[in-house]
Amino acid sequence: MKNAKLALSEKTQSPTVIQIGDRATVGGKDLLIVGGPCAVETLEQMQQVARHLSEAPVQLLRGGIYKPRTSPYSFQGLGDAGLTILSQVREESGIPTVTEVMSISQIEGIATHADMLQVGSRNMQNFDLLKALGHAGKPVLLKRGLAATLEEFIGAAEYILSHGNPNVVLCERGIRSFDSYTRNVLDLGAVVALKQLTHLPVIVDPSHAAGKRELVPHLTRAAIAAGADGAIVECHPEPDKSVSDARQALSLPEMVELVDSLRPIAAAVGRGVPVAQPARALSVA
Amino acid sequence: MKNAKLALSEKTQSPTVIQIGDRATVGGKDLLIVGGPCAVETLEQMQQVARHLSEAPVQLLRGGIYKPRTSPYSFQGLGDAGLTILSQVREESGIPTVTEVMSISQIEGIATHADMLQVGSRNMQNFDLLKALGHAGKPVLLKRGLAATLEEFIGAAEYILSHGNPNVVLCERGIRSFDSYTRNVLDLGAVVALKQLTHLPVIVDPSHAAGKRELVPHLTRAAIAAGADGAIVECHPEPDKSVSDARQALSLPEMVELVDSLRPIAAAVGRGVPVAQPARALSVA
Amino acid sequence: MKNAKLALSEKTQSPTVIQIGDRATVGGKDLLIVGGPCAVETLEQMQQVARHLSEAPVQLLRGGIYKPRTSPYSFQGLGDAGLTILSQVREESGIPTVTEVMSISQIEGIATHADMLQVGSRNMQNFDLLKALGHAGKPVLLKRGLAATLEEFIGAAEYILSHGNPNVVLCERGIRSFDSYTRNVLDLGAVVALKQLTHLPVIVDPSHAAGKRELVPHLTRAAIAAGADGAIVECHPEPDKSVSDARQALSLPEMVELVDSLRPIAAAVGRGVPVAQPARALSVA
Amino acid sequence: MKNAKLALSEKTQSPTVIQIGDRATVGGKDLLIVGGPCAVETLEQMQQVARHLSEAPVQLLRGGIYKPRTSPYSFQGLGDAGLTILSQVREESGIPTVTEVMSISQIEGIATHADMLQVGSRNMQNFDLLKALGHAGKPVLLKRGLAATLEEFIGAAEYILSHGNPNVVLCERGIRSFDSYTRNVLDLGAVVALKQLTHLPVIVDPSHAAGKRELVPHLTRAAIAAGADGAIVECHPEPDKSVSDARQALSLPEMVELVDSLRPIAAAVGRGVPVAQPARALSVA
Repeated sequence: MKNAKLALSEKTQSPTVIQIGDRATVGGKDLLIVGGPCAVETLEQMQQVARHLSEAPVQLLRGGIYKPRTSPYSFQGLGDAGLTILSQVREESGIPTVTEVMSISQIEGIATHADMLQVGSRNMQNFDLLKALGHAGKPVLLKRGLAATLEEFIGAAEYILSHGNPNVVLCERGIRSFDSYTRNVLDLGAVVALKQLTHLPVIVDPSHAAGKRELVPHLTRAAIAAGADGAIVECHPEPDKSVSDARQALSLPEMVELVDSLRPIAAAVGRGVPVAQPARALSVA
Repeated sequence: MKNAKLALSEKTQSPTVIQIGDRATVGGKDLLIVGGPCAVETLEQMQQVARHLSEAPVQLLRGGIYKPRTSPYSFQGLGDAGLTILSQVREESGIPTVTEVMSISQIEGIATHADMLQVGSRNMQNFDLLKALGHAGKPVLLKRGLAATLEEFIGAAEYILSHGNPNVVLCERGIRSFDSYTRNVLDLGAVVALKQLTHLPVIVDPSHAAGKRELVPHLTRAAIAAGADGAIVECHPEPDKSVSDARQALSLPEMVELVDSLRPIAAAVGRGVPVAQPARALSVA
Repeated sequence: MKNAKLALSEKTQSPTVIQIGDRATVGGKDLLIVGGPCAVETLEQMQQVARHLSEAPVQLLRGGIYKPRTSPYSFQGLGDAGLTILSQVREESGIPTVTEVMSISQIEGIATHADMLQVGSRNMQNFDLLKALGHAGKPVLLKRGLAATLEEFIGAAEYILSHGNPNVVLCERGIRSFDSYTRNVLDLGAVVALKQLTHLPVIVDPSHAAGKRELVPHLTRAAIAAGADGAIVECHPEPDKSVSDARQALSLPEMVELVDSLRPIAAAVGRGVPVAQPARALSVA
Repeated sequence: MKNAKLALSEKTQSPTVIQIGDRATVGGKDLLIVGGPCAVETLEQMQQVARHLSEAPVQLLRGGIYKPRTSPYSFQGLGDAGLTILSQVREESGIPTVTEVMSISQIEGIATHADMLQVGSRNMQNFDLLKALGHAGKPVLLKRGLAATLEEFIGAAEYILSHGNPNVVLCERGIRSFDSYTRNVLDLGAVVALKQLTHLPVIVDPSHAAGKRELVPHLTRAAIAAGADGAIVECHPEPDKSVSDARQALSLPEMVELVDSLRPIAAAVGRGVPVAQPARALSVA
């Protein structure tokens, strides 16, 4: 891994702390908790999510608008209409947002209306996209490919860093393996290793790893105990009605309860969970 | 796999035969043999390759000009200058060419100057690229992602098909596994299954699967015996001097010998290897 | 792999040819074709199998009597009663037999009544069993563990060799991977590598690899083209009534047809398929 | 998984709590911490380990005497001489012991002189050994095979349970995967799932999973946060001089420090770490 001079930690380099929007940070003492549905479905859905999660607190709101799907006939996300919803909810709630970018042409729009751009597992080595994100002007959440080695993952981050964007957050989201009981295998050894090898923040996505909601809180707590800088967790006002990944989404009260359960774990490893900030008025009660 | 209505074979559907350039076909009785270096390096290199391989015969010339590499500091291919070389050699030799496309902006140039566009493993689920290839007007060689299920592979092909391009060739190139002796594991069960499930041509890339040249001829023969419609094999005038993947490239005489060894195997499973066509004059002796 | 001095091929060492019973050999010019059901069920079943397969010809008869099963409540094999059946059919037909040994206490009985002892994937690193097989006095068919590296596989063979038994045949039977379409992935790169690294015969088990009978003949032909020394194929008088692995067994006519299809492939790689020997009288018509 | 009626939890079944020796329990509120070297090397080594670890406290002492090794020429453990050492240290220190059993003939000796019998990953489906352990009269620590599904793992436990031994502890020790940075991948999703599916205690082996000592404390804390009932951790008086697995062993002070760091994590998930019991006099200062 000699060829990743920007991502690898040097002895004198302290951990990188990244500011996301005007409220959230990741890589410092406080954990970053990201929550929200797999896909943006309606304005009402996202308002409900934002209202509930600001109490958790969740510092960053997720919601897919361009959705990578195995079949071209599956729901592909609301697209630009979803971006408008996400933008409105961010404005109303004051909570910064992250959403996935699937191609170079989407970068400008997302960078304008959201606070962080997510690169999905399938695009971890879409090198032209990574290069373009070097100039996005917003932090990037880079998900590990489902069979990516650490060298490949760090190399992918290096593409973004070396093209001008120093704000990259690595996300372990489960690797593909042989047993179908869990959707993927959350590789916490990789999280520990990435924290030791690089100076970049590392968070986990326990929802895609587990694929079953009853495993998610346990895996989130495990990740925080392992030293992760945060977690991105799928939750939904009505999980069973989610248009995608219904089986793995937490309900909103379960999400609040999960964040609460992270406090003593975080404290045990010298970290903290931020307290809720006063939410801006939301247009729904 | 219900949602891949265009890729899946119906009882009444005969195998798809695809024309590549004015000389090569794939999916019919004759096997498609593709050869050439990992990367286009110089005009002389490619001319030497074309001259030798036309005797094999190789019906399609490969050579990467935009190279996906783990590290941003590794050789990234000659880019547009490589396309000019590839185009000149195609013109001189009359052998059609295939080269990898890494982003939407490269499609037009490659479609103009080459005969087939290759999607690499890392981009198998770069869905915006796949959609754009639906309108490329040239056949697409779609490589399987290194941990892609058959459902995901077929789904990726369906993206191209459903966006208007019926000429998709599937390529099994080895899946990632636990043993480092071979670079990847050539999954010939997948080749057989894909031939049974879909009507698309299926070829193999034994070079990337094996990662060691001494394994390549054996795996190529195995693939043909399994029913593959062809193979794409790395070869180089001076394999040990190859700028990338040196360890897995055959020499040109080894490539000619390999093609020759395929004839009785092909015959045993009801297939054929085309005979050499008269090469156009080449500018090198 | 320095520590496998007996298994690894030396420059001066020619391939090991192993005699099994009075009729079969493996590792020489002729391929070894092994056939029979997953489990010995009845005397009639085995007689029917032997009668049909002697025409194929199959030179070695397989049939499990001690069956390793995931659940303790699944059919565990006929045990000693199965050995009696196997022994009688061997006597009647003259075809040598191979059956799985699961523990040290079973070695003596099997070595007395059968011609070859099989070590299953789950016991590839049951080192006390391997050591005991060093003194079995009969050849051993050693199956690769489902996630065994080549180094581990060769090391396991070395346990048997170094404890006094030079007659070890390696069997690639598919490795565990992420896609459930095939049961396992037949790793023919490993077959080629094992042939190059060691002087031991290497055969394949396409039935357990594929898990679906429609894939089996194609994979068997592929393995022979890759240079395997033979194949062990599940077949059954009434495949769909097989007590285990029904989905992957060939019918007896399909098995005869498969062997026939191997002849030109074998010839193409300098090998042969033996012709049928006159069968001894069998007690059923 | 219907066929594992003894291992699977029923609604009315409370978690199984298992007594090991006269001091240790697992499956109740208190975590089980197991420590010790990969292999028993000398009496002095084990006395030093016992003395230090009783302060941690470690409630169960590990040390291999029969060692499964890839090569027959590698150190195979001290054998019976090691059992004598283990027995003496157990007597002197009062700390119960666990050691690996590799074959049926070793059960009686180990069951007499140790408090728990370990089944290694390679023997997880050595069904005759599992059946014999049904009558061992001592608890069994069953390690997950390196590519075992949860169904196979639970099935293996069921073999022991259904043959008369209700005291089985499951141990997740990392699964084999594609990246060589860590030795294996600790599958904490499996730990959570096993706790939900079965009533058996589940512990982890972070040492074999990580293969690098600097990852071990983090993974141990993660496992406890995930809900594991304990951990078995390799430690050694002089880790770099360990005859096997030197790279992954903690020093004894590091082990004490690790146990200490587990207390707040355990408390956060409603568990506890036992306090040190007064050690019996040890024959070394």
